[in-house]
Amino acid sequence: MIKQFVRTSILSCASIAVLAGCGITESAHQPANHNRAQLQGVPKNIIMVVADGMGPAYTTAYRNYVDDPTTPNIEPVVFDDILVGNASTYPAQVSGYVTDSAAAATALASGVKSYNGAIGVDVNKQPVNSVMYYAKSKSMRTGLAVTSQIVHATPASYIAHNESRKNYNEIADDFFDVRVNGEFVADVMLGGGTSYFEREDRDILAQFIDAGYEYADSYNRLASVPAGSNVLGLFAPVALPAVLDDKRKNRLKYLTKNAIKHLENDNGFFLLVEASQVDWAGHANDIASAMAEMHDLAITMEYLRDYVEANPDTLVVLTADHSTGGLTIGANGDYRWSPEHLKSLSASVMTIALEMANEENPGEFVAAKLGLSLTEQELATLNSISNQDDKTRLSAVKTFLDTKTNTGWTTGGHTGVDVEVFAFGAGYQSFMGQIDNTDIAKKIFSFIDKKQPAKIAFPSKKVSTNIELTSDEDDDELCDFKEDWRCN
Amino acid sequence: MIKQFVRTSILSCASIAVLAGCGITESAHQPANHNRAQLQGVPKNIIMVVADGMGPAYTTAYRNYVDDPTTPNIEPVVFDDILVGNASTYPAQVSGYVTDSAAAATALASGVKSYNGAIGVDVNKQPVNSVMYYAKSKSMRTGLAVTSQIVHATPASYIAHNESRKNYNEIADDFFDVRVNGEFVADVMLGGGTSYFEREDRDILAQFIDAGYEYADSYNRLASVPAGSNVLGLFAPVALPAVLDDKRKNRLKYLTKNAIKHLENDNGFFLLVEASQVDWAGHANDIASAMAEMHDLAITMEYLRDYVEANPDTLVVLTADHSTGGLTIGANGDYRWSPEHLKSLSASVMTIALEMANEENPGEFVAAKLGLSLTEQELATLNSISNQDDKTRLSAVKTFLDTKTNTGWTTGGHTGVDVEVFAFGAGYQSFMGQIDNTDIAKKIFSFIDKKQPAKIAFPSKKVSTNIELTSDEDDDELCDFKEDWRCN
Repeated sequence: MIKQFVRTSILSCASIAVLAGCGITESAHQPANHNRAQLQGVPKNIIMVVADGMGPAYTTAYRNYVDDPTTPNIEPVVFDDILVGNASTYPAQVSGYVTDSAAAATALASGVKSYNGAIGVDVNKQPVNSVMYYAKSKSMRTGLAVTSQIVHATPASYIAHNESRKNYNEIADDFFDVRVNGEFVADVMLGGGTSYFEREDRDILAQFIDAGYEYADSYNRLASVPAGSNVLGLFAPVALPAVLDDKRKNRLKYLTKNAIKHLENDNGFFLLVEASQVDWAGHANDIASAMAEMHDLAITMEYLRDYVEANPDTLVVLTADHSTGGLTIGANGDYRWSPEHLKSLSASVMTIALEMANEENPGEFVAAKLGLSLTEQELATLNSISNQDDKTRLSAVKTFLDTKTNTGWTTGGHTGVDVEVFAFGAGYQSFMGQIDNTDIAKKIFSFIDKKQPAKIAFPSKKVSTNIELTSDEDDDELCDFKEDWRCN
Repeated sequence: MIKQFVRTSILSCASIAVLAGCGITESAHQPANHNRAQLQGVPKNIIMVVADGMGPAYTTAYRNYVDDPTTPNIEPVVFDDILVGNASTYPAQVSGYVTDSAAAATALASGVKSYNGAIGVDVNKQPVNSVMYYAKSKSMRTGLAVTSQIVHATPASYIAHNESRKNYNEIADDFFDVRVNGEFVADVMLGGGTSYFEREDRDILAQFIDAGYEYADSYNRLASVPAGSNVLGLFAPVALPAVLDDKRKNRLKYLTKNAIKHLENDNGFFLLVEASQVDWAGHANDIASAMAEMHDLAITMEYLRDYVEANPDTLVVLTADHSTGGLTIGANGDYRWSPEHLKSLSASVMTIALEMANEENPGEFVAAKLGLSLTEQELATLNSISNQDDKTRLSAVKTFLDTKTNTGWTTGGHTGVDVEVFAFGAGYQSFMGQIDNTDIAKKIFSFIDKKQPAKIAFPSKKVSTNIELTSDEDDDELCDFKEDWRCN
């Protein structure tokens, strides 16, 4: 039997109408050529960007990573123009002070603190409505673009209701079954996850196609879908490849741009974008992938900055759900961080570690893939680990880069530090200062609420409150070598 | 010979006049009962608070530390009302991406990036002027209140000019010798450090008394000094005791309040306040002292919040110079942080570790001092270390608390993460968003510049550019057992 949690703060839909935005203010962080009235008004379009696992050290590290060493100062990056404050991330009291991605996503999506593992349900395992659901109830178009499987914790919490994030198949079912006044919650869904939608027990993919959705199983196929369509784009059985292994450069920008192409309409849209794999790099304590995934996000944010320049009635909010890995810039008493060793990788550390076992000269192979000129001693060290098992080799290559860069980690899990909040475009002022992750949903609810009256109703499907916690065996198998970071 | 560093960004005094403040804006973070005109104008009084070593994890951890566990949500703390953004902290290029306290303090004080170790000098070891110096040139009263020795890196950088932070005696000389149009830079100096001022080779203390300064060597003596005096208050040979060992509760608030008492005047004042020992707790990886020093700071900030309520023409800015220790809230894959074990200490971990060696029942002694009820096994573990040397015992007690609380650390030094910026009162809007540590000085220069024309001149004393780096042997001895954290 599942324990019923009783203490939390819950924002009911009934209370949405009374949520007031923060004082409407204006700072230096505005897109150029903005219209003052538009900026201070209610946004027509809302784009919520979640950088999973991106604690404060990630954004500073990224600025250092792309620094031009031929200039005396460190150049500002896209995040520097749009920082407005911090958000606390703690889950419902029953889960202590350190959140997982599910509780955090439920908070960001619905404004409700829940327990770690919860997908769109409160501590009593009752469904809570998300801002995406509410946007749909107001006849906005809705969508998501992520680099994980689309049933992963963050996107799942905007659509599904499940007691456990691990129930990927049930969550995929919800993507079709949960309706808003008979309509699907999301018009556009882009990311990975065919294995959860095209199953032996149920072919949800076919159901979506029957319901009129365009289906894209490749980036090129996606490009050919006519603008304004309903689209299900699934480009991998589970998650998309790590950005360092993906042939499609700037993949998150590409997905985001395509999502917007299908969402734009006179009544506005709500889009969730997730840089899902910053978190996975953090869980893996893989600084090379962490910086590469941050770069994928930064390029997306630059695109969105340009989009808001052209569409100043759009609000963009970026935050993280939590920080991952306990990343620190410098470690072990040494006042040094050396990101220059991370700039020339031509594959992910995981791919390098897997493939080096098949190479005649593994040290030289690793050096070439890292894009580094290594010493004889470093090459010998790498050669000496080539006969070890996959996990040992992976760990050794990561440690090698940690030592080169002087990167610190304290955990393969999450930490509780507040995360940064970035916002620009119409209404961005509401997110300034210190807020809570639930405030982000509450402010978005408040904006959507200022549109025409909602015909809001709870989802038709409710989650049972007395079923046993189950795990998805396929997923556990998938997580095994990868140190479970896809499950956190 | 000392290497001459050539690349950095230097704010010359000549350029101060052209420094523009950021867009004047207003957010929800205002003291109640403020006068709008006052808030948007130039502050009469400026209080700069530096929390040495207070990276983002420290403020989140502090909120958890004082959380009332009988309520479902975490209560906001004083910092939450005043957060306005982040600041980058990197030093001059020659020192890489991770700053020490001297380079950071020079940046905060003068707006100039310098090398790690620099006290009020640029990369060419030429003196740079601080905002305190500039305030004095505008006939403002000036002061500092810190919990370190007053010649430590942060306060030193506002007054002295030395190629090395370690030259404490030379820095103390500068406190008397550096003048602004014949006047001392600081009218009020409160903190520790008698050993640097009352020396065999020079009695600077006597010189200050001869020059008309009131001298206080105890908190009670300080209380009896008439308001408006020039005061040198030194309450310890080196630093003040750790807050957990200090009989004077709320010591930083007490010093701050007393400093203001002597600084208030019609022309305004500039006051530097430093919570110096947050950093030392971080260097020591001592989570109990970190939270206790944060509490000492929080009480000071609450006092300053009230002060600005009553004096809305005052600006308060709080930031850190860098983050220390690589502190993380949670570690080792465990999604848990348990600050409840840190709430009842009646002495610092260092004192406990030193004293337990003399106790008949060291385990029970430690349990009593920590204010914890420990298991038989925990008591046995503590008993088993009581015969070890001081350093081993200290390390063991800290590890014991890290395990109880699940606290992570990656270094005994600093890390490069951006730090938070907090501001309230007149002109606080200038500090919103993402800025650099040098911007803080530049904005303060800009405010001071709006006062009557300055009669600014470089300090009469200049630092030699070709002397050898030296270390203060007394200080090194002092630092030995304490793992050098007083030197970082």
